Amino acid sequence: MNPSPSADHGADDSTGSSSETRSKRGAAQPAILAAAKQEPASHVPVWFMRQAGRSLPEYKAIRGEGTILNAIQDPERAAEITLQPVRRYGTDAAILFSDIVTPVFAAGFGIDITPGVGPTCEQPFASRSDLERLRPLDPSVDLTYQRSTIDILINELDVPLIGFAGGPFTVASYLVEGRPSRDFAKVKSLMTADPELWHELCDRVADNAIATLTAQVDAGAEMIQLFDSWAGSLRPEHYREYVKPHSAKVLAAMADLGVPRIHFGINTGELLNDIADAGAEVVGVDWRTPLPVARERTGGRVALQGNLDPAMVLAPWEVLEAEVLRVLDDNAGHPGHIFNLGHGVLPQTDPEQLERVIELVHRVGRTDGPRS
Amino acid sequence: MNPSPSADHGADDSTGSSSETRSKRGAAQPAILAAAKQEPASHVPVWFMRQAGRSLPEYKAIRGEGTILNAIQDPERAAEITLQPVRRYGTDAAILFSDIVTPVFAAGFGIDITPGVGPTCEQPFASRSDLERLRPLDPSVDLTYQRSTIDILINELDVPLIGFAGGPFTVASYLVEGRPSRDFAKVKSLMTADPELWHELCDRVADNAIATLTAQVDAGAEMIQLFDSWAGSLRPEHYREYVKPHSAKVLAAMADLGVPRIHFGINTGELLNDIADAGAEVVGVDWRTPLPVARERTGGRVALQGNLDPAMVLAPWEVLEAEVLRVLDDNAGHPGHIFNLGHGVLPQTDPEQLERVIELVHRVGRTDGPRS
Repeated sequence: MNPSPSADHGADDSTGSSSETRSKRGAAQPAILAAAKQEPASHVPVWFMRQAGRSLPEYKAIRGEGTILNAIQDPERAAEITLQPVRRYGTDAAILFSDIVTPVFAAGFGIDITPGVGPTCEQPFASRSDLERLRPLDPSVDLTYQRSTIDILINELDVPLIGFAGGPFTVASYLVEGRPSRDFAKVKSLMTADPELWHELCDRVADNAIATLTAQVDAGAEMIQLFDSWAGSLRPEHYREYVKPHSAKVLAAMADLGVPRIHFGINTGELLNDIADAGAEVVGVDWRTPLPVARERTGGRVALQGNLDPAMVLAPWEVLEAEVLRVLDDNAGHPGHIFNLGHGVLPQTDPEQLERVIELVHRVGRTDGPRS
Repeated sequence: MNPSPSADHGADDSTGSSSETRSKRGAAQPAILAAAKQEPASHVPVWFMRQAGRSLPEYKAIRGEGTILNAIQDPERAAEITLQPVRRYGTDAAILFSDIVTPVFAAGFGIDITPGVGPTCEQPFASRSDLERLRPLDPSVDLTYQRSTIDILINELDVPLIGFAGGPFTVASYLVEGRPSRDFAKVKSLMTADPELWHELCDRVADNAIATLTAQVDAGAEMIQLFDSWAGSLRPEHYREYVKPHSAKVLAAMADLGVPRIHFGINTGELLNDIADAGAEVVGVDWRTPLPVARERTGGRVALQGNLDPAMVLAPWEVLEAEVLRVLDDNAGHPGHIFNLGHGVLPQTDPEQLERVIELVHRVGRTDGPRS
């Protein structure tokens, strides 16, 4: 771990970092911040979930030994990985190279990321005594590497940095299941059988999310995304009862900081209105739900992010091009749209395909009405 | 393989088998057939996807060595496995112990079921020449064990037997991906990049489904279910263009045979109306979509099957009981409801929990209005 930013990046001034970024790019409001407010902009903003890492050859070249958590704890490397997709693709935002389990890892829960598997815990969360392994996070001590990474980034970036944290259900699911799950049987059982313990667990997960997000915004992140990726495995009533209050708490804390908030999950067709309700300027939509349907279900009160199927990025360009145009046409030039995939970039993705996607969206996308 | 039913089951009369079953149980229409017609019955019918095999100790006791395909090809054993859950739970239907890949396996494609993984192909479907590995199925030669199994069953059962086949997208996904997939990138790429080849592939898969289903109905199956389990990974337009015509063809052929048809997939919230459109008396709904929402989206023209979350069967009884009552209350006593899980029984399920579920549904469920 490297607790302070390296001096040669000149980022040792820990205040006003984001205003430095802002001045660097001039007076115009970045397109992605305009979209979050549902205001027209010069172009349709684009970024890709999992744009940092995974599929990029320049990432593989510097990724190094050890788990992804080792790379995350190395500010120089984490910053470089964050910057790579911005340089290559010209995305309208950077997203911090980190992981949704970083805060619980930093809080000492005992979680790792096993290559080829995902987050794993030797001792999953099972009872009240496990709460002790989720102490409150003090980012100034526990996440110094995060601060150092952002300090480097703010000096380099001319687009907004998106900070992020995992949503309560998704993080809790890894803690309780002890590994990625398809059925979420253990976590759903704990949630419904012992709601008191569940709510205490989520309260700690939420507090840690607030702590890490606040630190990211303090360091200069201009937007945040709450990744409750697996919340869509719940039926709506369970979502409302067991998850939404905790997400709402995190998102309310972010509202106090004045940054636009993106709230994301997959398979959330039936939850979209509740996800919007929990508090967000922008709601993520996967490819299963057409944007007009999502807009209707959320009553037009939020901007939408999505919703190209990441699998389609692996199809030949002619097919992919038609898919991109379909997303744009579905959106019909509504200003409240951030172009993205419906889920993360697949590891086997050819970066050239994403280069062509962003070029196309930037070239033909409109934020003031349908393409002609 | 045992191509003929054993004489001591007395099922060597290969005609009129289902009328034998019908006479055995008396004049009343079975509740599950009434539900498919949206007609009130004496009780709410119940069965569980994956009720045969997997979690039952009596199944494990007779499962034997080899893969599941070996057990499927042994009529005595396959019939016994089919009967076990009917005896234990008193389900309102039996479902043939088989697998969605049985027809393509029998047609010689080169597919196996690897324990702990699922269907796997050493040489996945990749190009036109692979069509040759999907020859038309002749059930009287290729699926003699299926006939023999059903012959045994028809003699033993006093509830309807549900025949089944895999839906076009789901079967094709195994052939193209070569193993279970989370992203379906290969199959979606083939589908959209070479629609002509895709449609030829699906045409063969559909013809094989029709062949196996017709043989099952001829042997005595009184309902059928088309399992397009993974179709919900597609966006609606892709479903309509690439999958629905093939499902419609299979289901139209079954309409000609006069058996009620169930059409099932998970994550299909946005597809429910198209799935109903493809042709079915009953549409399966997973727990993500509340039954009233599903009923609205399908315009009330189909009965619904579902939609208890299989993960909830692992919760303590008090929780599970509330979940079961929630499903019944959501349905409000509509006669067009077959109680089921929203997906298959999980392997770690305690059979006693399912015993209690069916007892509760049979005791308190109503088919002529809400519970008082």
